[in-house]
Amino acid sequence: MQQTPSKIASTLSWQGGVSGCLRMIDQTLLPTEFREIDCTTVQQVWEAIRLLRVRGAPAIGVAAAYGVVLGLQSAVQSSRSEFDQALQKTAEYLAGSRPTAVNLFWALDRMQQTAARDPGASPAETLKILLAEAQRIETEDREMCAAIGRVGAELLQDGDSVLTHCNAGGLATAGDGTALSVFFAAAAQGKQIHVYVDETRPLLQGARLTTWELLQREIPATLICDSMAGWVMKQGRIQAVVTGADRIAANGDAANKIGTYSVAMLAKAHGIPFYVAAPTSTFDLSLASGAEIPIEERVAEEITNGFGRQTAPDDTQVFNPAFDVTDAALIEALITERGLIRPVTTENVQRIVNAGSAVRTD
Amino acid sequence: MQQTPSKIASTLSWQGGVSGCLRMIDQTLLPTEFREIDCTTVQQVWEAIRLLRVRGAPAIGVAAAYGVVLGLQSAVQSSRSEFDQALQKTAEYLAGSRPTAVNLFWALDRMQQTAARDPGASPAETLKILLAEAQRIETEDREMCAAIGRVGAELLQDGDSVLTHCNAGGLATAGDGTALSVFFAAAAQGKQIHVYVDETRPLLQGARLTTWELLQREIPATLICDSMAGWVMKQGRIQAVVTGADRIAANGDAANKIGTYSVAMLAKAHGIPFYVAAPTSTFDLSLASGAEIPIEERVAEEITNGFGRQTAPDDTQVFNPAFDVTDAALIEALITERGLIRPVTTENVQRIVNAGSAVRTD
Repeated sequence: MQQTPSKIASTLSWQGGVSGCLRMIDQTLLPTEFREIDCTTVQQVWEAIRLLRVRGAPAIGVAAAYGVVLGLQSAVQSSRSEFDQALQKTAEYLAGSRPTAVNLFWALDRMQQTAARDPGASPAETLKILLAEAQRIETEDREMCAAIGRVGAELLQDGDSVLTHCNAGGLATAGDGTALSVFFAAAAQGKQIHVYVDETRPLLQGARLTTWELLQREIPATLICDSMAGWVMKQGRIQAVVTGADRIAANGDAANKIGTYSVAMLAKAHGIPFYVAAPTSTFDLSLASGAEIPIEERVAEEITNGFGRQTAPDDTQVFNPAFDVTDAALIEALITERGLIRPVTTENVQRIVNAGSAVRTD
Repeated sequence: MQQTPSKIASTLSWQGGVSGCLRMIDQTLLPTEFREIDCTTVQQVWEAIRLLRVRGAPAIGVAAAYGVVLGLQSAVQSSRSEFDQALQKTAEYLAGSRPTAVNLFWALDRMQQTAARDPGASPAETLKILLAEAQRIETEDREMCAAIGRVGAELLQDGDSVLTHCNAGGLATAGDGTALSVFFAAAAQGKQIHVYVDETRPLLQGARLTTWELLQREIPATLICDSMAGWVMKQGRIQAVVTGADRIAANGDAANKIGTYSVAMLAKAHGIPFYVAAPTSTFDLSLASGAEIPIEERVAEEITNGFGRQTAPDDTQVFNPAFDVTDAALIEALITERGLIRPVTTENVQRIVNAGSAVRTD
């Protein structure tokens, strides 16, 4: 039995004032159960990020920002220097929840810089400022999603079938998502599009989350196994591929959910444009190329015991990288809230990411 | 809990004389349970093929041959013309169990031709002849596997890591398998090889069956999700890919488990040789190219409810082709029991497949 919310629910939202809590959809229960949970401690936020109750780079960033607020609620009676120490400790703690998510570090850094801006403010005042900053990160995230949708929708034609991998949807952000925002915006423009969804083993974010979002928005979708992507391309069913990204290096190499690299290679071989939709906060210009992006390896059981059933013999050796890196040369364009980066070169990446306002290279 | 047989068990074997039965490993229970079942009726064989208790083109052929015997056990008291009608009906019935498996039609055809050779023989005599023919098909299958192993092992070097997709192992044949026979033969020659195993969604034959066989034979193996194949290739971990095939057209285009085409494209893009190991009975020279091979589509639930848990929302649209076709141009060589076909051309395919005895183009 499937439960659906009465309206399109927020992936995550703050409830109340400085002593409030973080409400989020528990995405590990989708698609068969829709349940929201209230995180009242930073430990619950850490666990939610770690266990993928909340996932997707932008959503993790927003969750971490609110996590900082939760982690400091008990420090409002402390001295400012104790408060600052607690902030440092909380940020370090949250940074350990998902090592590949650059938005996590970006959001934590921004929260720390915000607190540092007024070292004379009291802990209580600073906590208010931090809550406002977390809410600003959330609002910017919603605006970012909408802008990515607008920019990306121009790349799709009426009647196109597109392929996506994993979930770069509203569930991955506070807003409409990144890759899925492109589809939502194209549909809102009246374009008929059809989305092929890779189920995305091992954790099936495509099957569980992306199809759920597309059904909610009434966008025609067809679920396939990851191994079928090449075959549907070969049959001429796919006109474009759009995925999200977890981290993008200065040269445009993009780390994303494992399997993205294969999809990009297959798209190239079939002459299908491969696009990556991601906010500028996903870029890490300190990394010259994707070779410098650390790849998280996850436990074997995700593959051998993933869905309540043992699917491989005892003692099976497993390789389970959570991400792979797609070379910039395979990416037709990067879709950001500040415009398209096309062609994907270090120079064009820098121009867009370092620009304060909306500019386009294309 | 995992149960393993005390010795390497036969995928399928006939028990007793003309009134005997067909014993087979129920492969749907692997890898967590090892159980053999005895099919005493042709309906049980049809169901076993349909439900993939027995799978893999060569094993299906052997099972179907024995299925013919089972289907005629009750016809020994009939007239010869009634017996012949029952044979015709049994063959047509079994042919409907898996539409893509050419070995099925090949084995049924061979059984019918065998019966037709002596139209004066009594039903009881003919049944004996048919049982002997089914046993000959099984013996030839074992010899075929061993020959494929010998031919293919020459392609692998000591220290190679190889990738395989689905299960083209002993469980897919009466003997040592096709692709896996190559690995077993290379290991028997003292070569250290390491096998990366695609789990092979949706039915996970790689995870469930191939890793099980490799563990039984003590060949080092690493299980990956299908979507990881490109990434392990990119990392230089793979020196060759070997898969089986369900049906091969006259020009060498090869239908095999869905996902094989993607793996072949990715191998090509990474400069890794892609080999297909299959007996000459897998070739269907009446089909000029792979475009003429019918592709079975299977039920959505294999993807949406495959692990004992619903993994996609209600009402999800699904595309679930069981096979895809790999172009001959992507195949470095076809490994057959009569030798290598390299390069893969219509001319070379014909020379090997039409040859009565062992010849090599290479």
